[in-house]
Amino acid sequence: MRILLVNPNVTEAVTEMMVAEARRAAGPDTEVLPATAPFGVPYIENRAEAALAAHAVLQVLAERAGEADAAVIAAFGDPGLLAARELLEIPVLGLAESAMLTAQMLGRRFSIVCLSSRLRTWYLETVALYGFEARLASVRGLDVPIPDIAAARDQFRARLIEECRRAVDEDDAEVVIMGGGPLAGLAREAAGDIPVPALDGVACAVRLAEMLHGLGARPPVRGSFARPRPKAAEGLAPALTRLIGGE
Amino acid sequence: MRILLVNPNVTEAVTEMMVAEARRAAGPDTEVLPATAPFGVPYIENRAEAALAAHAVLQVLAERAGEADAAVIAAFGDPGLLAARELLEIPVLGLAESAMLTAQMLGRRFSIVCLSSRLRTWYLETVALYGFEARLASVRGLDVPIPDIAAARDQFRARLIEECRRAVDEDDAEVVIMGGGPLAGLAREAAGDIPVPALDGVACAVRLAEMLHGLGARPPVRGSFARPRPKAAEGLAPALTRLIGGE
Amino acid sequence: MRILLVNPNVTEAVTEMMVAEARRAAGPDTEVLPATAPFGVPYIENRAEAALAAHAVLQVLAERAGEADAAVIAAFGDPGLLAARELLEIPVLGLAESAMLTAQMLGRRFSIVCLSSRLRTWYLETVALYGFEARLASVRGLDVPIPDIAAARDQFRARLIEECRRAVDEDDAEVVIMGGGPLAGLAREAAGDIPVPALDGVACAVRLAEMLHGLGARPPVRGSFARPRPKAAEGLAPALTRLIGGE
Amino acid sequence: MRILLVNPNVTEAVTEMMVAEARRAAGPDTEVLPATAPFGVPYIENRAEAALAAHAVLQVLAERAGEADAAVIAAFGDPGLLAARELLEIPVLGLAESAMLTAQMLGRRFSIVCLSSRLRTWYLETVALYGFEARLASVRGLDVPIPDIAAARDQFRARLIEECRRAVDEDDAEVVIMGGGPLAGLAREAAGDIPVPALDGVACAVRLAEMLHGLGARPPVRGSFARPRPKAAEGLAPALTRLIGGE
Amino acid sequence: MRILLVNPNVTEAVTEMMVAEARRAAGPDTEVLPATAPFGVPYIENRAEAALAAHAVLQVLAERAGEADAAVIAAFGDPGLLAARELLEIPVLGLAESAMLTAQMLGRRFSIVCLSSRLRTWYLETVALYGFEARLASVRGLDVPIPDIAAARDQFRARLIEECRRAVDEDDAEVVIMGGGPLAGLAREAAGDIPVPALDGVACAVRLAEMLHGLGARPPVRGSFARPRPKAAEGLAPALTRLIGGE
Amino acid sequence: MRILLVNPNVTEAVTEMMVAEARRAAGPDTEVLPATAPFGVPYIENRAEAALAAHAVLQVLAERAGEADAAVIAAFGDPGLLAARELLEIPVLGLAESAMLTAQMLGRRFSIVCLSSRLRTWYLETVALYGFEARLASVRGLDVPIPDIAAARDQFRARLIEECRRAVDEDDAEVVIMGGGPLAGLAREAAGDIPVPALDGVACAVRLAEMLHGLGARPPVRGSFARPRPKAAEGLAPALTRLIGGE
Repeated sequence: MRILLVNPNVTEAVTEMMVAEARRAAGPDTEVLPATAPFGVPYIENRAEAALAAHAVLQVLAERAGEADAAVIAAFGDPGLLAARELLEIPVLGLAESAMLTAQMLGRRFSIVCLSSRLRTWYLETVALYGFEARLASVRGLDVPIPDIAAARDQFRARLIEECRRAVDEDDAEVVIMGGGPLAGLAREAAGDIPVPALDGVACAVRLAEMLHGLGARPPVRGSFARPRPKAAEGLAPALTRLIGGE
Repeated sequence: MRILLVNPNVTEAVTEMMVAEARRAAGPDTEVLPATAPFGVPYIENRAEAALAAHAVLQVLAERAGEADAAVIAAFGDPGLLAARELLEIPVLGLAESAMLTAQMLGRRFSIVCLSSRLRTWYLETVALYGFEARLASVRGLDVPIPDIAAARDQFRARLIEECRRAVDEDDAEVVIMGGGPLAGLAREAAGDIPVPALDGVACAVRLAEMLHGLGARPPVRGSFARPRPKAAEGLAPALTRLIGGE
Repeated sequence: MRILLVNPNVTEAVTEMMVAEARRAAGPDTEVLPATAPFGVPYIENRAEAALAAHAVLQVLAERAGEADAAVIAAFGDPGLLAARELLEIPVLGLAESAMLTAQMLGRRFSIVCLSSRLRTWYLETVALYGFEARLASVRGLDVPIPDIAAARDQFRARLIEECRRAVDEDDAEVVIMGGGPLAGLAREAAGDIPVPALDGVACAVRLAEMLHGLGARPPVRGSFARPRPKAAEGLAPALTRLIGGE
Repeated sequence: MRILLVNPNVTEAVTEMMVAEARRAAGPDTEVLPATAPFGVPYIENRAEAALAAHAVLQVLAERAGEADAAVIAAFGDPGLLAARELLEIPVLGLAESAMLTAQMLGRRFSIVCLSSRLRTWYLETVALYGFEARLASVRGLDVPIPDIAAARDQFRARLIEECRRAVDEDDAEVVIMGGGPLAGLAREAAGDIPVPALDGVACAVRLAEMLHGLGARPPVRGSFARPRPKAAEGLAPALTRLIGGE
Repeated sequence: MRILLVNPNVTEAVTEMMVAEARRAAGPDTEVLPATAPFGVPYIENRAEAALAAHAVLQVLAERAGEADAAVIAAFGDPGLLAARELLEIPVLGLAESAMLTAQMLGRRFSIVCLSSRLRTWYLETVALYGFEARLASVRGLDVPIPDIAAARDQFRARLIEECRRAVDEDDAEVVIMGGGPLAGLAREAAGDIPVPALDGVACAVRLAEMLHGLGARPPVRGSFARPRPKAAEGLAPALTRLIGGE
Repeated sequence: MRILLVNPNVTEAVTEMMVAEARRAAGPDTEVLPATAPFGVPYIENRAEAALAAHAVLQVLAERAGEADAAVIAAFGDPGLLAARELLEIPVLGLAESAMLTAQMLGRRFSIVCLSSRLRTWYLETVALYGFEARLASVRGLDVPIPDIAAARDQFRARLIEECRRAVDEDDAEVVIMGGGPLAGLAREAAGDIPVPALDGVACAVRLAEMLHGLGARPPVRGSFARPRPKAAEGLAPALTRLIGGE
């Protein structure tokens, strides 16, 4: 199968990191197609940047979903995820939702560890949107300058692992989720240093995309994820106008 | 004071309806400045259309908030509201939040009546985002074709009022909210036909904007509504790039 | 318009403090009428004192609501607020509800800072009654003797501001509410020392009273805030007997 | 032991009905002392009447609790219950809380059946105050005129039992609670007509009073139910002034 | 009346401790019949051990409930409680549920203090099953080796009392529950050292069993606690096979 | 990989149905090993039968988990699931949890359709245990005699599909879950008759088992799913005694 991995940010180096991890996690018959947001910011930290990213994600999906059997929105707060499910008939996954669903099978409560404390609010609202508040132990963010987002994973590795350990010791976390596409791979590399399962959103999303594809559930013709009635959009990219127009 | 009323949809006739109601509701010293989304759909019914509208709203606010003392995002699900509050230092209000806050003072539970049953899910998620689930009696949407969104209020008036009455009789609603910018004015006109208070999002938002402006609370320098650290955005409208860039 | 400000406690000096702040907050066309509870305690700290105050508030409102266009119950836990809304057809506001509704527009979570740790439980139950638990960051009360309640605001100013700062730093509060009528004016005076918006219940209630009055929603004839059926009460003040009797 | 049963309403005939049922439910060594509110309404249906009753209850308890080992506040919404627990060191029980606690041991969800649909809101807020919302199946109230509250139980017996049956059939209730002091005895008499356990608040409260008395838990010296610091009250009945004054 | 006290663990010395406390708590006309699980572990600390204990409890009840008027499942997490209520027509009580229901009448929030930190999760899930999450202040477990479970109460007495005090000071507990059958009696003995009511599950359950027996509610013939339809079980103890078979 | 599919009931014909569906759903490299409970009932409908099944499941897993890379507990309410995760280091899945996690990716709310209305309560408590209450639209059970559980799927096919349709039309379900191992395969066969995705617990669990196995998360050494400290069990099957003994 083919999975379209969409980076909602404009940083291609992060797309590459995530695609590399996606390919490691994927089964032998899975092909991963990379895509990067055509507009937006280098990395998302707040609701405003996430709102812009949602548009970029929808545009990329309108342009390229036809090439794939499933799509992954590869930023931890899943900008545009529910919106994309309304418009597309292939499975669409997000890093945050995928990691939290996986966490449910591995422990009673999970913590999210991330690079920036500003991410915390967006992540909390994402957790609430999916209904996982009762299972959230904590969101722990570093409070550091991030001059180069693609290098941050390696630059702050020790502090991130330390926060994971504190989530277990102080917050009662039974699973730790690495929150953020730019942390792709860290959960796998640091597993030996963390006393509970550590999850990578990219790996979880890719495997769940395979799982859903294999399950072959048919798209709904009723409910809020059925295709909306067509509308005449204005001022959008042509592929998105066509998609909203019902083509 | 000056209030910028931003229609997140591209239909100027609806902007005019809302501005008219805003001016009726406003105090004598308030000026209402109209703005219409530069891209998007004629009216929003689902998460996908709301996601695109959020970008349009942020762009309009970046371009024009400097003219105003407060802004109102004038579609019922408040696309981009929390995002806008991060970027701007003037009060930003939304029709849905404003109506729900007002309802809290007037009754135990409220119902939302709207034109399209498809709106229901987006409205439910908006109610949940603001934490008002326990006070929601119901969302009641018509299931009708909407050839002309600016004419729908008058075309479906009788049915909308009938749904308001059923919300009181069957769902135990103590307040009824007209859900949707294109219904602007209906709550006022139909008040005599509904046995509980009926609220118009535009009127509530304009009056709360005046209230907040008068209160003069200073913008936060901490927390998730403090201005984010500046970033170099790509591919956005110039005013939005400047705003995100911290200018 | 005329706003009747009812102090549910018997301390006239606190009534004066609150009326002064109410007049500062009110618009130019608003007149504030003071009233003080005819029986009860010098200041409320617990459920028992609040229960007695609710009766006193209803009695004052029965006697004097006819003079006003709206009423404010001016103790932070809003004794008798929902009861008063059943009996009266003018808008009735409370300091706690008004401040929390305002906080919703200014930040994700709020803390309440108050003079006495014993107030905490009553405030927590008030927050729960209004459905704002998910938005409450903390209630922080001093643990000090209060020989003169009207002087406490100035006497403990530094410690109260310190608790506000700790609410932001330690509890993740994005708005701080000064909890208690005897703190009237402190939020305004201390705004420069607190890194997030600080709210005064009196100011919020007065401005929301103006907002509701301007909105002109008609009183319900259905639901739990419609006037109850008349009853023959015994042993109450004459005005209250008449009000319950349906006059 | 001696149990003081306080009717929060002024109708002595209802006091007598409740005392009769209390004596039937009590153990052989329990004496039931009757008391009736000195002011208020014939029966409570709403928040306003409940607020006045709370004061009356506190006054009766201040005057007479010294005669008893435990007290029962004998109206279904328990006016003044938490307030009374702050002021007194003997166990204080309420009909609603007692019935709901008992229901928890007998079924998954309970319904409350009562005489007046207006009671519904007060009961819902009582259920919420105690945290039993998730266990509430429904509140079902008749919508009838009540010319004589002491005769209503027998007058509307058939309709009340019919509502109990509908609560089981339509609302999935596994326990039915007769909501209202004036229904005292009906649960016992109608048990054979209802396919799930039917509970009487008076009987539950009396038996729980015996249970708590036997348990002999010592009163708290910390927390919100410890005696408050003494205050100088004004305008209250002498016994209440003494109680609040710490005597 | 006769109460069958079933120890879900295989340690007879703990059965004896609990029976001794049960007899102290019981009224003069109550007889306590001891029973000990025929298979399982010395004491339960986790979900796996609780699952095995549930079967053992059901087997003992099938064999011996006919001798009694009520039964108490005497381990704090109440293994098999809801299951037993489906199969039996006498009241069945559990230590955890009984203590939490009693706590509701004595304070706003309770803490559970127990011997092992591993018990915490099972207790949290029990609290959630009964719907008491909002009233739980904390679960505090020691982290000690337990060579002799019947001696642990006396061995760790000082540390357990210290945790009770910290629950009051740090967690805002207004009631403290001794969590665990092997702590039977400690709440009574240590009451003078704890500033809020301290509860013993065994004493609460015995007194509530008396209360329910006296109330005489009839068993349901509808709902999830009505007797299930008979089934042909395989491989179970004969008495359990007969019970499930509808005999 | 090898997946051990454990039927918690004693009906081998149902084991065969489930294994057949498991093999259809599994990837080409997955082997499915069947196992049937050595004691219990023909099919589970209530908490009591589920409690006995949990013991049977743990015993089978103790005996046979060594043969497999993952295990599936193949009854819809997942008897013993959390208990098994404490004792085993391979992934353990349940039909109910797996279907609900999958539903989360496919729709906003799900309904469960099952053979017996008595199953409803057990399923509701399972949904609550996993924290999915807010996403549950309804549980719909037939109310029919079930003489032959292995034939029930085909016998009641039309009525089950009708309930699925009503869940969509009346309960707003966006996903339908076939609740019950004996319904294995029905979701796949009936997909064309249901306007939203229909899920089979067996297929979801098998695919999630593959997903988790591929992810390779390491078992926790901390938290409630880490292996418990060893204990000397009595009266259990030898393999279970060894497992609890830490071997």
